[in-house]
Amino acid sequence: MGRDRGERAIDLASLAPAFRPRSVAVIGASRDPAKIGGLPIAFMKASGFSGALYPVNPAGDEIQGLRSYRSVTEIPGAVDLAIVAVPAPAVLPALGDCRAKGVRAAVVFSAGFAEVDERGRALQAEMASLARESGMRILGPNCMGVVNFGTGLVANFHPAFKDGIGKAGRIGLVGQSGALSGLCFTMAADRGLAYSASASTGNEADVDAADCLAWLAEDPDTTVIQLYLEGCRDGRKLMAALDLARARKKPVICLKPGSTAEGAAAVASHTAALAGCDAVFDAVLRQMGAYRAHSLEEFFDIAAACAVGVVPRNDRLGLVTVSGGIGVLMADSAVRAGLEVSALPEHAQGKIRELVSFAATRNPVDITGHAVNVPTLTDKALAIVIEDGGYGSVILSIGAGGRNPVRAPQLLETCAALRRRFPETLLCLSCLHTADFRQKLAAIGCLCLEEPVHAVRAVAALAGFRRAFIAPAAVPAPPVFDPLPSGPMDEPTALAALSGAGIPVVPHRLVRTADEAVRVAAELGYPVALKVVAPEILHKTELGGVALRLASADAVRASFAEITARVAAAQPEATLRGCLVAPMIEGAVETILGIKNDPAFGPMVALGLGGTLVEALGDVALRAAPIGLDEARAMIKQLKGRRILDGIRGAPPADIGALADAIVRLSQFAAAHANEIASLDINPFAVLPRGGGAMALDALIERRF
Amino acid sequence: MGRDRGERAIDLASLAPAFRPRSVAVIGASRDPAKIGGLPIAFMKASGFSGALYPVNPAGDEIQGLRSYRSVTEIPGAVDLAIVAVPAPAVLPALGDCRAKGVRAAVVFSAGFAEVDERGRALQAEMASLARESGMRILGPNCMGVVNFGTGLVANFHPAFKDGIGKAGRIGLVGQSGALSGLCFTMAADRGLAYSASASTGNEADVDAADCLAWLAEDPDTTVIQLYLEGCRDGRKLMAALDLARARKKPVICLKPGSTAEGAAAVASHTAALAGCDAVFDAVLRQMGAYRAHSLEEFFDIAAACAVGVVPRNDRLGLVTVSGGIGVLMADSAVRAGLEVSALPEHAQGKIRELVSFAATRNPVDITGHAVNVPTLTDKALAIVIEDGGYGSVILSIGAGGRNPVRAPQLLETCAALRRRFPETLLCLSCLHTADFRQKLAAIGCLCLEEPVHAVRAVAALAGFRRAFIAPAAVPAPPVFDPLPSGPMDEPTALAALSGAGIPVVPHRLVRTADEAVRVAAELGYPVALKVVAPEILHKTELGGVALRLASADAVRASFAEITARVAAAQPEATLRGCLVAPMIEGAVETILGIKNDPAFGPMVALGLGGTLVEALGDVALRAAPIGLDEARAMIKQLKGRRILDGIRGAPPADIGALADAIVRLSQFAAAHANEIASLDINPFAVLPRGGGAMALDALIERRF
Repeated sequence: MGRDRGERAIDLASLAPAFRPRSVAVIGASRDPAKIGGLPIAFMKASGFSGALYPVNPAGDEIQGLRSYRSVTEIPGAVDLAIVAVPAPAVLPALGDCRAKGVRAAVVFSAGFAEVDERGRALQAEMASLARESGMRILGPNCMGVVNFGTGLVANFHPAFKDGIGKAGRIGLVGQSGALSGLCFTMAADRGLAYSASASTGNEADVDAADCLAWLAEDPDTTVIQLYLEGCRDGRKLMAALDLARARKKPVICLKPGSTAEGAAAVASHTAALAGCDAVFDAVLRQMGAYRAHSLEEFFDIAAACAVGVVPRNDRLGLVTVSGGIGVLMADSAVRAGLEVSALPEHAQGKIRELVSFAATRNPVDITGHAVNVPTLTDKALAIVIEDGGYGSVILSIGAGGRNPVRAPQLLETCAALRRRFPETLLCLSCLHTADFRQKLAAIGCLCLEEPVHAVRAVAALAGFRRAFIAPAAVPAPPVFDPLPSGPMDEPTALAALSGAGIPVVPHRLVRTADEAVRVAAELGYPVALKVVAPEILHKTELGGVALRLASADAVRASFAEITARVAAAQPEATLRGCLVAPMIEGAVETILGIKNDPAFGPMVALGLGGTLVEALGDVALRAAPIGLDEARAMIKQLKGRRILDGIRGAPPADIGALADAIVRLSQFAAAHANEIASLDINPFAVLPRGGGAMALDALIERRF
Repeated sequence: MGRDRGERAIDLASLAPAFRPRSVAVIGASRDPAKIGGLPIAFMKASGFSGALYPVNPAGDEIQGLRSYRSVTEIPGAVDLAIVAVPAPAVLPALGDCRAKGVRAAVVFSAGFAEVDERGRALQAEMASLARESGMRILGPNCMGVVNFGTGLVANFHPAFKDGIGKAGRIGLVGQSGALSGLCFTMAADRGLAYSASASTGNEADVDAADCLAWLAEDPDTTVIQLYLEGCRDGRKLMAALDLARARKKPVICLKPGSTAEGAAAVASHTAALAGCDAVFDAVLRQMGAYRAHSLEEFFDIAAACAVGVVPRNDRLGLVTVSGGIGVLMADSAVRAGLEVSALPEHAQGKIRELVSFAATRNPVDITGHAVNVPTLTDKALAIVIEDGGYGSVILSIGAGGRNPVRAPQLLETCAALRRRFPETLLCLSCLHTADFRQKLAAIGCLCLEEPVHAVRAVAALAGFRRAFIAPAAVPAPPVFDPLPSGPMDEPTALAALSGAGIPVVPHRLVRTADEAVRVAAELGYPVALKVVAPEILHKTELGGVALRLASADAVRASFAEITARVAAAQPEATLRGCLVAPMIEGAVETILGIKNDPAFGPMVALGLGGTLVEALGDVALRAAPIGLDEARAMIKQLKGRRILDGIRGAPPADIGALADAIVRLSQFAAAHANEIASLDINPFAVLPRGGGAMALDALIERRF
């Protein structure tokens, strides 16, 4: 895994000087407040940064009204953080000075490193060594830096701050792209959202996004985290940071481009980041309880929903509307997002009918156009739905109500009263609105979004965080495994290894002659399968080395001769050890279990459905190993074709418990042998009808070299 | 199909008095301009309606300054359109007066009909009869009515018009829900969009959404149509209207809630509309070239894109950005939406590098944060991409550029020049912007959307319209078919019917004895399948009446006895005609072909992949029959599991031509026998490797009674 490539583990104490410095030096400070070396000084003067601020510039002794120093080493007091805004060739000397001065952290704005050429890569490697050796933490190079909205630290040069950094909020932002982070400040302001702190990590010579994420997870001023990720070198470190955020019950919303091959190619050309396998990223975000957004709008909608601070107590959604069509739109998207649009209790439906005799009362509750005549009926219906429905979340869709000068104050009053009475229920208004109305709703803990379908999406995201925040079941400590036998692994060896890991395998025997094969077949029971065994031959089916459904001694005898001859002819140098005989297993659902070693995230366990689903649709669930039983069950539930396991066309339901257990054991095996196994395939892994168990019918292990 | 239930075919001439009346009577006119009977008068006075306006109210002789009449029959001149705003019990007498007066169309606002109870349904049926008998067209009841923004007709009572109807635009709106239509006016205004005409059809006693859609398709003032649909009684009429819009090259954007079972249930409780099978709706919208939106925002984004009036000439998308991450996000969503993010030609990449040496040049073109220093480089890069890229569409993503007082005018100038030089290229800006900037861009034929992912979605929608507007290949006239033989259809009869329709079927013979079965099996060649034949038995597999892969005479003999005995025991009253013998077909991809008769849309042809994909994923493509070869190929392409037909795991590609031909023929068969067939299943329809053809291995026809 990543750690053995010299990455540094998360060390929060060492990051404090970057996020909460008491003193800041600006190396390359400029008199011109519009220049990259002038901007942070101007920003910090405007933001009222409370610590000491030391411009450093060889030319002068006063910059923007502050005493300036020719070198960082000349500064009298201690320096927690140095901002480095000098051309690339001058960066390492400047960092050398910082080291000499005992500076504890540096933010390097300068570009011209690994993102441009080989020489830049070498310089960046030197920078990484300097950080590692000195203990000084370095953000960047080629980064937009750090802002702490609470302390007024603006180690950042984005023009978005030219009118000030605004009031501090509760959202933390980590981004690998500075330009995007800059846009985020403006988009957040548009939505009345505010940040606690932000870090843009650029080329990540030392400090990476996972470090910053972990810092925000422990930052008491941050309750929600937006993470913009393009790639990741040390996947397990990212997982640790995500897990820390989950443990602190802080929702992480992640925007990660590169979900298609074309997109991933563009990322690779864009930064020095390794885009990595998107399916693995997606699996890890899911596994660690983060929410993955697919547009900027979604990135902010979900952050806004989280910033409200109410996590719904269940997955049930109540819908109140004045337009039946919108009610149905919301119900559609709620069901698709996995929420329960359960019926309002009968007595409450009666209360709604008392308000409006022809209202739809089940859920969605539709007060109809009658709301135009007596608008407050809607508010009464909302109260009934919240009070009697038992819904974790309720959405009121009310057309243009948030803009209506008469209705908006009524709605605010209604919502405020309901929030006081039912503080645990998430209340969301979907309507055209003014910024003022939305802000006032936010102040009382109500979410407000224009688009009803996006309101549902936000509720679904919060429901997902609730599930993630329920302490995840402990991952059982993996048993101790013997190392794998050395040398190439033929099928009996691979099956024995799996069996040793507690994964059931089909009864089988290695036979050397046709006579022996016939004897064993009779013992195991017809029909049987026959497969050649040779350590050099991994893909025996392709060579014609497999015969299936052999129903008689004659068939076994003939096939033994045939398949061994065929393989010997195709691959004369192979060491034929004989054939493996195993009974045919009928009436099972065929699944595929596997292990892949990801360059960033290490051993991943995979589950797919056999037959054509994996190839035709890529319908595979992945997790970073090891995992526990709950996560194994979540993998099964995640498959698009999961209905096959429930039993289709009159087939009995499959033994999902046995499948989940095998996934857990395989994940332990994967974790224990991470350094030995490049990949492993059990295809098929047969899952018998419930109560019948499950077993590997084949196994193929490729070693890691 | 719907027609035989007494629905009226599209008759555009009869609708003109509703959309372009020269004179309007308001029955139930009110002095109070805030009441339902007062609002249209107030609105039309404000809008400057050019025709005659006659209030009708038994009480007074002046209403809102206009001469009022006690009955519509007392009005001296001709009346094209009557607005009926009286309580439900008074509606039919009022319509009777209209009929006596010779009024040509009526808009009935009044509620209390089919949407409330049995009595209301009866009243509504009377209204429908009156329309049919008199030729007077009736919109409603329970509808919000018609607005013609060009003539100032406001036969509508929505409060959204209290500040006037605004300038006329080019978008037509048809909605079954009045409340939603009302919200649409405000949402359109927010986006700087304007309508040509709108119709809200309510309960659709007579005029339905298809009528209004067809009218807008022929309306010279309308270029884009938004269609909000909850249900449809006459599917073929809707198809005809959609086809008319396509023929006139007018994009139709459809929002239709009810895509989940829960949603559909809510629709049913909301209006009198039949929600219908959503998969059928979805298929028909696709088939007729309409775009289906799934949120209000999407409904408007796509309409805004269409209103720009540029249909891109190909599916290739060029992307220019100042933030690599956003470039990748856009590339991801473009690829997922089926657009081609093809590379910029090498010489043009060179020109980009001359501008910014470290830019990403392939596509997306990323000018990087360097754009902050020299902003106009972005404009130069945009010009290169448009000039040299050959892209049908180009998106420039430019952060907050549309709000920057320096940049916005530069961008406008750049875009205006590029629009003049390349009028056929769709140019879209994705950025934070002001309403003014967006309006100015719209005026020069540029689209502007904030969210980059939604900009891509809009381009993809336009590309879809381009494909739809290419004159669809003529559907070949179906051959003349003999009527189906009377009585229940056993398998040989069904196979014969298919064969008669030109659909290849497996060689097969009906045998009466085991001896005959053995003889025939030898002729056809082993291995064979054996299936009992009895007209009463449709599902023979479930009764144990099928034996597969019989490889010898002994096996055939034994199986004949076994399956006939089993079926005779299970269903003693069945008339066993013998067994069908057919060779086993190996090496084919198994598909499922079918016909379903939809209550609204009539005969639909269906295609799925065999094995587990249909059951596990519902991976089925549907079309209204008959269809031509292009549409059959589109069905194949639409399957999620289509890769199986391309040949996976080293299998050869399947004979897609033969499959498409069979789909066309089956669709003709379905159309010809629409009144005889309730459903038909060919499972499996075996598709052999390319050049090998395809054939039905089984057939099951259920008659319509």
